[in-house]
Parts: sequence; C-alpha cells; structure tokens
Amino acid sequence: MDGTKDICALDLADRKNLDPEMTALVAGIEKKYGFMPHFVRVFATDNQRLRAFMGQYMELMRRDSGLTPLEHEMIALVSAATNGCVYCTAHHGALLRGETGDALFTEYLSRNYRLAALTPRQRAMLDFTVKVNRDAESIADEDREVLREVGFGDEQIYMICATAAFYAGANRLAQAIGLRPSPRYLEMYREPRPVRRRAKA
Amino acid sequence: MDGTKDICALDLADRKNLDPEMTALVAGIEKKYGFMPHFVRVFATDNQRLRAFMGQYMELMRRDSGLTPLEHEMIALVSAATNGCVYCTAHHGALLRGETGDALFTEYLSRNYRLAALTPRQRAMLDFTVKVNRDAESIADEDREVLREVGFGDEQIYMICATAAFYAGANRLAQAIGLRPSPRYLEMYREPRPVRRRAKA
Amino acid sequence: MDGTKDICALDLADRKNLDPEMTALVAGIEKKYGFMPHFVRVFATDNQRLRAFMGQYMELMRRDSGLTPLEHEMIALVSAATNGCVYCTAHHGALLRGETGDALFTEYLSRNYRLAALTPRQRAMLDFTVKVNRDAESIADEDREVLREVGFGDEQIYMICATAAFYAGANRLAQAIGLRPSPRYLEMYREPRPVRRRAKA
Amino acid sequence: MDGTKDICALDLADRKNLDPEMTALVAGIEKKYGFMPHFVRVFATDNQRLRAFMGQYMELMRRDSGLTPLEHEMIALVSAATNGCVYCTAHHGALLRGETGDALFTEYLSRNYRLAALTPRQRAMLDFTVKVNRDAESIADEDREVLREVGFGDEQIYMICATAAFYAGANRLAQAIGLRPSPRYLEMYREPRPVRRRAKA
Amino acid sequence: MDGTKDICALDLADRKNLDPEMTALVAGIEKKYGFMPHFVRVFATDNQRLRAFMGQYMELMRRDSGLTPLEHEMIALVSAATNGCVYCTAHHGALLRGETGDALFTEYLSRNYRLAALTPRQRAMLDFTVKVNRDAESIADEDREVLREVGFGDEQIYMICATAAFYAGANRLAQAIGLRPSPRYLEMYREPRPVRRRAKA
Amino acid sequence: MDGTKDICALDLADRKNLDPEMTALVAGIEKKYGFMPHFVRVFATDNQRLRAFMGQYMELMRRDSGLTPLEHEMIALVSAATNGCVYCTAHHGALLRGETGDALFTEYLSRNYRLAALTPRQRAMLDFTVKVNRDAESIADEDREVLREVGFGDEQIYMICATAAFYAGANRLAQAIGLRPSPRYLEMYREPRPVRRRAKA
Repeated sequence: MDGTKDICALDLADRKNLDPEMTALVAGIEKKYGFMPHFVRVFATDNQRLRAFMGQYMELMRRDSGLTPLEHEMIALVSAATNGCVYCTAHHGALLRGETGDALFTEYLSRNYRLAALTPRQRAMLDFTVKVNRDAESIADEDREVLREVGFGDEQIYMICATAAFYAGANRLAQAIGLRPSPRYLEMYREPRPVRRRAKA
Repeated sequence: MDGTKDICALDLADRKNLDPEMTALVAGIEKKYGFMPHFVRVFATDNQRLRAFMGQYMELMRRDSGLTPLEHEMIALVSAATNGCVYCTAHHGALLRGETGDALFTEYLSRNYRLAALTPRQRAMLDFTVKVNRDAESIADEDREVLREVGFGDEQIYMICATAAFYAGANRLAQAIGLRPSPRYLEMYREPRPVRRRAKA
Repeated sequence: MDGTKDICALDLADRKNLDPEMTALVAGIEKKYGFMPHFVRVFATDNQRLRAFMGQYMELMRRDSGLTPLEHEMIALVSAATNGCVYCTAHHGALLRGETGDALFTEYLSRNYRLAALTPRQRAMLDFTVKVNRDAESIADEDREVLREVGFGDEQIYMICATAAFYAGANRLAQAIGLRPSPRYLEMYREPRPVRRRAKA
Repeated sequence: MDGTKDICALDLADRKNLDPEMTALVAGIEKKYGFMPHFVRVFATDNQRLRAFMGQYMELMRRDSGLTPLEHEMIALVSAATNGCVYCTAHHGALLRGETGDALFTEYLSRNYRLAALTPRQRAMLDFTVKVNRDAESIADEDREVLREVGFGDEQIYMICATAAFYAGANRLAQAIGLRPSPRYLEMYREPRPVRRRAKA
Repeated sequence: MDGTKDICALDLADRKNLDPEMTALVAGIEKKYGFMPHFVRVFATDNQRLRAFMGQYMELMRRDSGLTPLEHEMIALVSAATNGCVYCTAHHGALLRGETGDALFTEYLSRNYRLAALTPRQRAMLDFTVKVNRDAESIADEDREVLREVGFGDEQIYMICATAAFYAGANRLAQAIGLRPSPRYLEMYREPRPVRRRAKA
Repeated sequence: MDGTKDICALDLADRKNLDPEMTALVAGIEKKYGFMPHFVRVFATDNQRLRAFMGQYMELMRRDSGLTPLEHEMIALVSAATNGCVYCTAHHGALLRGETGDALFTEYLSRNYRLAALTPRQRAMLDFTVKVNRDAESIADEDREVLREVGFGDEQIYMICATAAFYAGANRLAQAIGLRPSPRYLEMYREPRPVRRRAKA
C-alpha cells in the first residue's frame, strides 16, 4: 500500500526514504509481531519521522532506565486506558499479556488497575502514572514522596515521569489521527502461560 | 551546578557525557536565550536523553512541516495553557511574544485563546489543539474535516496532531518533575515591536 | 463454596432456599456458559433476590420488546464501558462477540463505540444510552426526537430507556460489591465466525 | 386516560392486561397516596412491566433487609438528589417528610445531605450511596470498610449497594422518559409532626 | 441573640452600629417575611456591611433595570440551584412561589429549569445565567447574541450579567459561612394562587 | 468616548450622571493607574452602578478587615486564575506585582498557586479561596477549621469568604460582558523591587 488511508483517518504519502538502519528496524518489528503494526506504518512514511519516534522510545527502554520491561508496559497500558485510546490498549494489552501470561490481570490494567492485585510499589507507580496523564497540574511534592517511600530513586522517578508523559503524547497522537488497531492484537498471547509477573516485579 | 535540585523537584545527576554535537547545541541555546533554560539543563544531564528530545523537536520544526513557526508556537502555548503548565506558559509565552511582538495577544493565548482575534484558520487549529490535549478520545472525522475546510491538507493536519501531542507530553513531563521557570522568561520580548503576526499567518 | 468471599468483596451467606424453578434456571445458565457466572452466584444466595433480578431481566428480553438481542447487547456493553465496570465489560463483551462473531467491533464498543462502524440507527441508540448512563439529567425532547428520526417508536424508546437504566444500576451494583470476573469470559467466542451483525441490525 | 402522553415524554399504550394481584396493588398505592403516582401509571401499562418493577422493589423492602424504612428512604432521596431527578426528589422528598416529620431535614437531604445533622452511621451510608451513584468505578475495599466500621454487616452493605444501584437505574429511567411529578407531592406531609428520625435511626 | 453562631458556622459579633436608615430597613424586611431572614442577621452585624450589600441589591432591583421582578427571581433561583446553595434555593424558592403562585414551576426552576415550561426569552435568559455561574470562561459573542435574538437590549443583557454574577457571589458567601435556612421558608407561599407568571413574563 | 463598545462586548450608554464624589473617585483611580481601567469605565456609566460596586469594594478593604492588602490581592488573583478571567488576572496580576515586587511569585499565583512558596497561613487561605470559587457546595466545618488552625479568627474568616465570593461574582461579570484588558496592565510593576512579601505576610 502506498498511503495510510486504510489504517487511519489521514492519508499520508509514503516518502519511501527510509535509510538502511530504519529499513532493518521496520523489518524486525514486523517479524516480532507477525504483522506490521499500524503505528509503525504511519511513522515509516518518512525517515526523520520514524527516527524521532524510535529515538524517544529507545531512550525510555534503555537498559539502565531503572524500570523493568514489565513496569514499562504497565505504565504504557494504564496510560492508554486512562486516555481511552483503543489502539494503544489493544497494542499494549497484547504486550502485557505477553509479559505476564495473565489475561485477567491485563484486563484489569486496561480497565481499572485499582482492582488488580498489585504490589504497593506497582500501585504507587500507577497512581502516579494516572496523575501524570489526567491531572499533572496538581502533582505536588507529596506525590513524588509516595514514590520514594516505595523505593524508587530520583532517576527512576524521572523515568516514570518520562514514560507516562511519552504515552500521554503517543496516545493522543493515535487518537488525533484516528489510528485503527489490527484485530491481530486481540488474539496475541491469549494462551495461558506460567505467570511470571510477581517474580519480576 | 552538578545536579538539578535547584531547578526541579528531582535530583538528577549530570552524567557529563554530551558528545560534541550536543555540547554545541546546548551552547547555542544558551546564547539564543541569554540564559540556560531549565528544561535544557534537565535533558542535558545525559547525551541520549537530550538527543531523543531534540530529535523529536527537530522533526516537528522541519522546514517542510507545512506549519509556520508562528503556528507552531501558537499550538505550543495553547497546549501549555490547556494543561496548566506554569513552566511551559512562561517559556512559550516568551517565544510567542518574540514571534508576534504583541504581549496582549500572547496573554490571551496563554489564558483563553477564544477571546483573541484569530483568523478562522488559526481558530480551527487551536480548537483542535485543545481537543487533542483535553479530550482526544472524542476526536472524530468531523473534527479533522473542520481543519480541511480552513485549508489544511492531511500532511499539515498530521503535523498539528503531532505538535499538540508532543506538547501534551512535554507539559506533563515538566509538571511531573516540578520544573521551575526562570524569572527571565517573564521579561523577554516585552518591549513592543511592530506586529507581524497577521502578515505571517 | 458456601459464601461469596471468593468472587466479590462481600461475604454473603448462601441461604440455600432456591425453589425448583430458580434451581433449574441456574443450572441452565451454568450449562450455557460452561461455568457459573459470578453474578449468578451472588443473586442465587437467596430465592427472592434471584427472582427479582431475573424478573427484571426477562422483562427487558421479552420477545415483543421491539429491540433485537444484538441491540440489547450493544446497549449492555456500551453502558458497561461508560460506567467503567470491569465485570460487565467482560461479561457483555463475551456475549457481543458471540452475537457478532467480530472481536474488533466488540472491542470498539467496549472502549469507544463512536469509532466503530455503526448504522445511524445504532449510533443514535448508543448516543442515547451513554446519555442515560452519564447525564440523564440533561435529556430533553430533542434527544428522544433523534431516536424517532432513525425509526424507533415510543414503545421501543421506552425499552432503550429501560435497558440502559437497568444496566446503569446493574453495573453499579457489580462495582459496589466488588464483583470479580472469571477469566473464562476473556476466552469466550474469540474464534472468528462469519459476521452477522449488519444483517441483524 | 389511555396512554402516558400527559405524564411523560413517551406515549405508551395501556395494554390493559393487569392480573388481579397487580390490579389490587395499583389500587392500594392510589389509596395510600391519595392520587395515582405517575410512575405507577407508566409501569401499569403492562402486567409484566409492573411485576418486574414491583418484584425488585419488594426485594429491597423485605422485612429482613437489615435496613430501616427510614434508611431506605434516605438512600432513595440522596440518590435522586445526586442524579438530579426532579420526579424522584419530589416523590421521595414527600416520603421522607412522612417518615421524619421534618421538612428542613428532608430539604437538606434533597439538596446537600452533608449539611444535615446525621449520625456517623447515616453519614457513612449516604457517602457510600453518592459514590455508588456518581463514581462506582472508584469504589474500593476502603469504602466498604467505612461501612463496617459504623456497624453495618456484609448483608446490610449488600442491601445498601442494591438500594443505591436500584435508584441509580430508576432515577435515570424517570429522566430518560421525561416523567413529570404531580404537584401533589409538594404538598404531602408538610404539616409539622413530632420528629421521630433520631429515635428510629 | 448577640452573635451569629445559631444561624451559621461563624460566630460574628453584632457591632450594634446600625444607623437609623439601616435599622428601619431591617425592621421592614422582618415585617415582610414574618421572621428575620438569617442572611439579614449576618449582614446586620455591621452598618457598612449591610449598606454595601443593600447598595448592590438595590442597584439590581432598580426600577429602570429592564428586567421584571419575576425575571430577577428566576435568575436568582436558577443561580442558587446551579451552585447547589441550600439557603438560597429555600429563600428564592419561597420568593418565586410568591411571585408565580406555582409551586411546581418553582420546583422545576430549583432543580432543573430545562424541564419547565418556559418562553424562549426565559429559556435564553436562564441558559445564559447558568453559563455565567458555571462556565463564564467560555462565554462568547454567540451567547450574548442569543439574548439579543429573543429581544434583550444591551442594557438588559448587562443587568442579566450583573444579576447572575451577584448571585454567583452571594450563593458562595452563604455556603462559605455555612448559613442555615429557616424552616419557615419551606412553608411560605405554598397555598395555590392564580398563576400570573405568563402574563408578567 | 461615549459608550463601552470599544472595551467590552456590550454597548452601554454613558448616562453622564456621576455626582461630585464619584467624579473625584474616578479621577483618582485614573491618576493611580496612569490610565483609566476598563472596569471603571463600565461602572462609571451610571452613578448608582458605580456607587454600588465601590460600596462593596470599600467594605472589603476596610481598615479593620483583619486581612492585609497583600492577603486581599492574593485572594483576588487566585480567584481570577481559578475562574479563568483574563481581565482580572491582568488587573490583579499587576496589583500583586506592585504589592510584592516579585513577578515570578505573581506568575505562580496567576497560574497555579500550589507551586508557589507560601506560608501555611497563605496556603490555607488560598485553598479555601479556590473552594469558595470552584466548589462552595462542598465546604464543610473541616474547611473552616483549617483556617482557624493557622490563626484566622471568625471575623477574618468572614472577610476571606466575602472577598473570595466578591471576586467570584466580579470575575464572572467581567467575563459575561466580555471586558477586555488594557495592554498597560501587562507592563505595570515589571521592574524588580525589594521583595516585601514575606515581611508583610
């Protein structure tokens, strides 16, 4: 396909200008998912556009971020749920099912994380995530202190802030351009697996 | 100074790992403003962190974005006002005063853009900006159609979406880490200059 | 099990007083679902309690209600989504997948029905459903007129009102007692089937 | 009269199919009030419709519910006030004046129960009632614990949940169909009587 | 009594410094109502305080205001209802019953004026009143134009603005000091009288 | 100029009926500000109108009010910010800069006072101010108790209530009539001066 009309509400031309590094990256993503995620197709319409997005994403996923991949995905899914983004709950719902092997836990996080069985550390992290997304204006020292009390250091708190803020933007972009999820997301990682969530958290 | 405790609510270590390109970029920003903006000091604590932010910013400001610098700054300031970010209204308020030479017009945009004298094109762009920031969940085809009716093409609409979404994230990050504005912002570009806003829009 | 502590936040004694009709009804439900839905276990703690609930449900599902089972389920799921009820989105999500064979359509209705492909009649019905659940205070003649314009008669409008209001109550009851969904819901009717939604609507 | 056009916004045919039990029940209600309440006229258009409503109502008013009639009416009126239902504040305002003989206490409950002189038990029950009606999504174990602390057992908490949820639905139904109150409600039980509220509570 | 502890949440000393004009005014009010309204007792604790309030009130009630007493009271009651002020709905509810002789019409205005039978002029005036009280920030030229379209001139629109704004303040003052209504308000003007509302409007 | 069309959205005739006292007062205000504030021009269209406003203002500024001018201005600015009034944030922003000599402190109060460095007494006063403006309905004894705990007596609490309520009304009036600020406000008191805020508070 040449544009994006079939996957979102805007028709963006594919500038076909990806450099070898970005081309390889896109191929790797398609292989990992088994299909080409629609958000990738949108960013891949232009080399700079894709690079800018991936640069930000890689910064958040850096090895020394202080957050585990599970924590990253929990923030991502709860942000998407808070912002009511259908694309992003489908995408990160699939990823969190993959991460945890627990469809019901994931369902709670995608609807109302407060009803899920969470460690105090996870609960504090997600309460903060919701506040960043919904009412950042009222964040005060007390809110950051709660994170410190459950063991997060300032560098980690920064990563929580940056991750939640990143998805606040990404969710809105997906919604603003009317990005539509592939039905494939809904089927991914549905087969039950040994839950490894607690061990990792 | 070595950390960020004096400018925000988190104490982030300066990793002193900026490469020559980032070092030059930071020097250029300080020269342009006449002081080092606090948000730059935060990102400049780490090379990858700064690069990721600048990559995203440069993508939005690209020459062929289809939006003028004035339009970019209007979206930035109205996003900041919508999200109630004190740092970002100070920063982008200064930049919009610089862009327009009109302190009262800027004041309106930083408080209630609907009371400002705007072209239909600007008004539509800012209405959409507010919806991206405040209620992206309810954006529908009708909203994008309004932008097309005042002359924006799909590539430009994408840039409006991406710019508004970027500031939705950036504002929240500033608020989440408790970033404090320099008083210098409040004095910048206060001297009246010939208004060039209309001509450019 | 003898109480309800394992499925909700309240421990209700099972009064073991179901009459033969209610006993048969419960058995039939368990057979239909392949497991005992938790909401049934709660109501079945007392004969009058179960009868009262089923009487109301049967009244809404009456053959001459003027609404199709698909329409009933769409109202049920959109109510649950509007009220943020995790139990009821799981339950009615499964039922709507069964009714439509379309997991993505169901996902839209469980998150943001406005993004789904709907007939004008379905859209009007669901807009009204949301208003009943979220802001019934502001319902005016104009709102009911919209339903008439897409072809609903007054008896049908009554059934829409009654169905939406019923789920407004049922969702809140499930939330107030902390009812927890079975993970089985999430797996039900996931296998793709020929979509029969449009034909029925 | 043959339809319901004179008392609500929908014209529902009177199916004239009440069985003897329902016929007697309607006659009893008219006698008790001194006029036929409009909500009864609506439900009495069909035998099953009326039975379904009465079955639910009787379940809530059962002798062993654990709640007093005063408590039931307080929940009913505060639900109606929370949902802004003019019909239901008129109806349950009259009933609570009858129950308490205290027009000012009733006025407080119909506008802002937090300003009324309440026992801690009543206050906790009504705080919970408001949360069921307005924000059931955020009800957590802590909220139910508050009810236990003022002496409610789990069976009683269930009845509070069920009563508040029932009125959440009933208020919305009255609003959705545009049910209009009789002016007679406003005059009922206005004559001062010895207050028996405290003694009963 | 010497202070205000029995009628509100603050204990204000009675400075006993009313001049003859204010003394006569207070006596006149008590005679008119048949009891001393509590808000008068609060303001009458000091001569300047009472004068300041009465000066503002008299300005709004001036003979050449362009609004009828009925229109003034409708604005007053709808403001009180919008702001949820129990004292002011009791006070202005009584006055509007007196003005109209119609308890049900008054009840609608005190709960949800949109359900009352209103002339287009009254409806426009009250829609504007609600916007002044609840969301003045979003008032635009279009809102004032609606008032002009139903026949209000600019001087009258000013009086609507000033009246609604006055009660926005007065309601909040009553709420902030915890002013309690006399039960006498609830009994005033309950006897039906020939309705003169329409004729006057 | 003869009307008010150039400064607000309504065209009010200047009745040219100011008595000598009001004429002198207007002249004094113009001299103090260096220009005629637009709100004065509106009220000065009629003698009684101006008197009524000034009477209320003088009552709040009385020497024995128990509040300092700084406290008065802080309440005024935070009310304006809470209500989103562009005119009043410009006006009281200028006055608070004059009072404090601190543009950044003023900026915080005009956007988000919770981020400013405040004494516990100031913070309590401003929290209460926001509640009066935004949600007076939920003010309870606990809220007034917080004020007593930081040292305010009941007479002072009354003045906080009256001041906040006054600006709740004044802000809405300015917004309802579309009053436009003079750009002069934005330049006033920008030159840094020795901060005297703390000493006075």
